[in-house]
Parts: sequence; C-alpha cells; structure tokens
Amino acid sequence: MTAFPDRLAEAVRRHGPLCVGLDPRVQMLPAEFARQEPAVALERFCLKVLELVRPFCGVVKPQAAFFELLGPAGFAALGAVQRRAKEMGFVTILDAKRGDIASTAQAYAEAAFGPVWDADALTVNPYLGADAVEPFVTVARHSAPTRGLFVLVRTSNPGGGLFQNRLCDGRPLYQHVGEAVAEWNAARVGACGLGDVGAVVGATHPAELAELRAALPKVWFLIPGYGAQGGTAADVRAGYLPSGLGAVVNSSRGVVFPFRPEDPSWEAKVTDAARKAQTELKG
Amino acid sequence: MTAFPDRLAEAVRRHGPLCVGLDPRVQMLPAEFARQEPAVALERFCLKVLELVRPFCGVVKPQAAFFELLGPAGFAALGAVQRRAKEMGFVTILDAKRGDIASTAQAYAEAAFGPVWDADALTVNPYLGADAVEPFVTVARHSAPTRGLFVLVRTSNPGGGLFQNRLCDGRPLYQHVGEAVAEWNAARVGACGLGDVGAVVGATHPAELAELRAALPKVWFLIPGYGAQGGTAADVRAGYLPSGLGAVVNSSRGVVFPFRPEDPSWEAKVTDAARKAQTELKG
Repeated sequence: MTAFPDRLAEAVRRHGPLCVGLDPRVQMLPAEFARQEPAVALERFCLKVLELVRPFCGVVKPQAAFFELLGPAGFAALGAVQRRAKEMGFVTILDAKRGDIASTAQAYAEAAFGPVWDADALTVNPYLGADAVEPFVTVARHSAPTRGLFVLVRTSNPGGGLFQNRLCDGRPLYQHVGEAVAEWNAARVGACGLGDVGAVVGATHPAELAELRAALPKVWFLIPGYGAQGGTAADVRAGYLPSGLGAVVNSSRGVVFPFRPEDPSWEAKVTDAARKAQTELKG
Repeated sequence: MTAFPDRLAEAVRRHGPLCVGLDPRVQMLPAEFARQEPAVALERFCLKVLELVRPFCGVVKPQAAFFELLGPAGFAALGAVQRRAKEMGFVTILDAKRGDIASTAQAYAEAAFGPVWDADALTVNPYLGADAVEPFVTVARHSAPTRGLFVLVRTSNPGGGLFQNRLCDGRPLYQHVGEAVAEWNAARVGACGLGDVGAVVGATHPAELAELRAALPKVWFLIPGYGAQGGTAADVRAGYLPSGLGAVVNSSRGVVFPFRPEDPSWEAKVTDAARKAQTELKG
C-alpha cells in the first residue's frame, strides 16, 4: 500500500487541502442528539459529519480531548469514528499532541498506529526532544502501511509565541524545531516529494508560515487556525508549494458547527460550509 | 477539603518523597496474570502493587500511555486504578503530558480532574504557551478539592536538552519555562509554602535541579529519573527544601518491576524495592 506522504498527496490532489477537524462538544450537538448517551451522540454526529463532508475533503482530524472527556465510552466512540473515516477513504490525523520518552512514547505510537486507533497520522509535541519524537517515527515507519507525524512547530493560538518565538542563538525556537523536523523527515520522502514527518504551523502567523515553507520544502504542513480562529484562505496560501501540494488546512468549528443546536437545517449548513471552505482553499 | 499543595505536603511528611510510577507493560507482568485479558491483568496487577507499596509511599503516578495502548478497556482499567488509589489515600498524579489550547485544553483538564480520571494532579507540556497551560490551571483551581499540575520544565531523558537547553536570551529555555511556572504557581500557595503548579525536573541533571530549586522556592517538583534511569538518592536531594518538602521523587520500573515474569516471589521483591527506595530517599 502507498506510503503515508503519497496517500496524503493523493487526497489533496483529489479534494484540495481542506482537512475537517472533528472537535465534537456535546453541548453544541444538534438537538436531535440531545437525548442520547453522550458518547453515542458524539459518535453518531461525527459519522454523519463524515458523510456530509466526504465530497469536499479527503482528510479528517479527530481531536482526542473531546472523546477523552467522556471516558472509556468516549474512546470507544473515537475508535468507531476513526475506523469509519478510514473505510470511507479519508486520511485520518489523530490530534492528540502526544509526547513522552522511550518505551512510553512507543506505547503512545503503538496505540495511535496499531489496532487501538489505526490512524494515518498523529500530532506530537517536541518539547521533550529527539528521544521523544524518534520512537513515534520508528513505529510510524514500521507500520503497514506507513504512517505519518505532525510535530508542533508554530501553533496558531495567541499565546503560542511564549516559548516558540523565544530567540535562541539569534533565531526563534520554532525555527530550531522546524530544522529538527526537516532532519527526521528527510529519511522517507515519497514520490510526491514530501516526507512522513510533517509540521504544525498556524495560519494565524502568515509571515512565519511563508518563511517555514521556504525553509522546509519537503515537509508536509498541517495548518490549523483557518476559519474560526481568524486565518484566511489568503493567509494559508503561503503554506502551499508551487505544485499545490505541501499543506492540509484544518477547519473545525467553521465547518462542523456553523449552526445552533436547535437549527433543523444543520446538515445543509455543514455541507455548505465544507463546500465553501473547499472552494476558498483551492481558489 | 485541603488544597492540593497541602495534601501533597501531608503525604510527603507521612511517607517521604517517594512516588511510585505505574507504567505497567503487559509483557512484564508476573506469570500469574498472563492468561487474563490484558486490560484486566493490568488493572489487577496495579491494584496489587498499590497494596504492596502503600506502607512506603503516599503518591502514585499512573502513566496513561500503557493503558491507552489497550484501548477503551485499558482506559477503564486506568479509571479503576485511579479510583482505588484515591480510596486508599494516595495522592494521584496522572502522567499524561497533555497540552492543547483553549477549550481543547479545558476538555483535557475536565477529563483529568472530573469524573473520568478524578486525578489529584496532571502532567502538562508547556510548548504551546500560556493559553495552553492556563485552562488547566483554571480547571484545577475550580475543582473541589483543588487539583495540581506538573509542567514539564527539564525532563530526565538523555535527549531532553535538544530544545530545553537551547540558549534563549543567554539562558537555557527551561529556565524561561521555570519562570512561567513560578508565575502561574504564585497565585495559590498553600499553608505548606508551596503552590499548585509544579515543575517536572529530572534527577539525571542534578546541577540544573539545584539551580531550579534555588530559583523556584515555592514550586513543587516532580522528579523523574531516579532509579532505573540512573539518578541517585544523592542526586535528587538537590530538589528538597530545607524543610524536607518540595519534591516527590518518582520510581517506576525500579519499584514496580524488580522481578522477572516467572518469579514466584515478585510481591516480596516489590515490597522490598519500595521499602528500600523510601529509606534511601528519606536518608
């Protein structure tokens, strides 16, 4: 089966760079889910969203936190959503921002890429250093098919610069992290010209996005912060390569929750939001 | 009920600074657990370990990764272990190294401190900045009783310095993170003189541990790296305040797995290892 970077490239070629983030908050679900057990409601809502957005995007990003909040039943729901997304042909990025060392990192990676979640990619946090990222890389590369990582480099949140933009040896920390990502990534570059260790770079910092794009020409970017967080389609374009590949752009609330719970036409609103995001991002 | 920093102080006054880390790997369990369903085996083994170490330590640290690896049943086991530890009077530190922004961070914090895990404290990763840590602080302080955090500052792994020791404005990054921890911590200092936002500082870097102890006199330290990772009892002493408070010192494999699976006297070995660690650390 095709290696991760090329599966992602295929998804982006077919559907454009839109990645739909599944951040389901129980209190925001449509009213028809209100009487169901929360984990069941979360699962059914996400399965419905997968159907609605399927024509407009090839990548989805479930957010582990909102499933974890519902305990073991929530995790079972996350598993069901991941499996269904895969069956439907989506590339799945599990957004769990894991990070630990040695055999603990390996356990997280085996959970993410093994039977538990079977995700195509996982977000990871680099603060603990090389021996915190490398076990994830090793497990990703030994899985069949191979999987990918997205390492947090420059995040989209307003306070993200507190440490990421700290000047180290004259350059912001995130550039050093970006360089480490490029090194990890270099060993497995696919036919598409991009590798299997990507970077998370926020849409809310377009100048830094452009600079990182130039510095890391073989690294896939996962770009959060488009839509509800304020990043525009023009902002994210700095993350694309001339080929049109190079980035997946995440929208969570903007696509998944463009309605109030009592709105009977919520499905049409999700469809419209996904179509609009796809068009804007291709544009 | 007593605030988190004072509950931790009480545990350390009674039992000394030993924290037993529950990092249960299925393949390392005693042979008697081999035929059980893995999540059941993990849970029963951990409950037995809780009994064995109860006389020697007041703090336990379950490691989320090894439970996650077993899927929803593993998470249910983690919940059972957490609950039992609490009933037995342990202070529990859930080692999940979570980190995310805004309402996502809040969801992780509500999972950790609400009915899902009901932990006394959680480890968190600071790379995403202030708006990644503050939602955890807010939820911890609004919980009843209040909970605590341990923010990764200088981790014990050999590669931990890749970013943590990068010189930023003339000082290593971890010192900047330590300063941020001191600021978050300052708002809730308990009767014991220590606050509710602690720092993870590895035993494997004793000079840095001493320097951080001097710089952060009101911050609880969680010290990994003692025992199996190579840190000695003499190394961790730099993390104590003159009062004897100030640090909990984690040992995972050294206390929990001092035996081979086929060893029929594994319980005695765990008891001996816990007694020895308690004595050494009090020393």
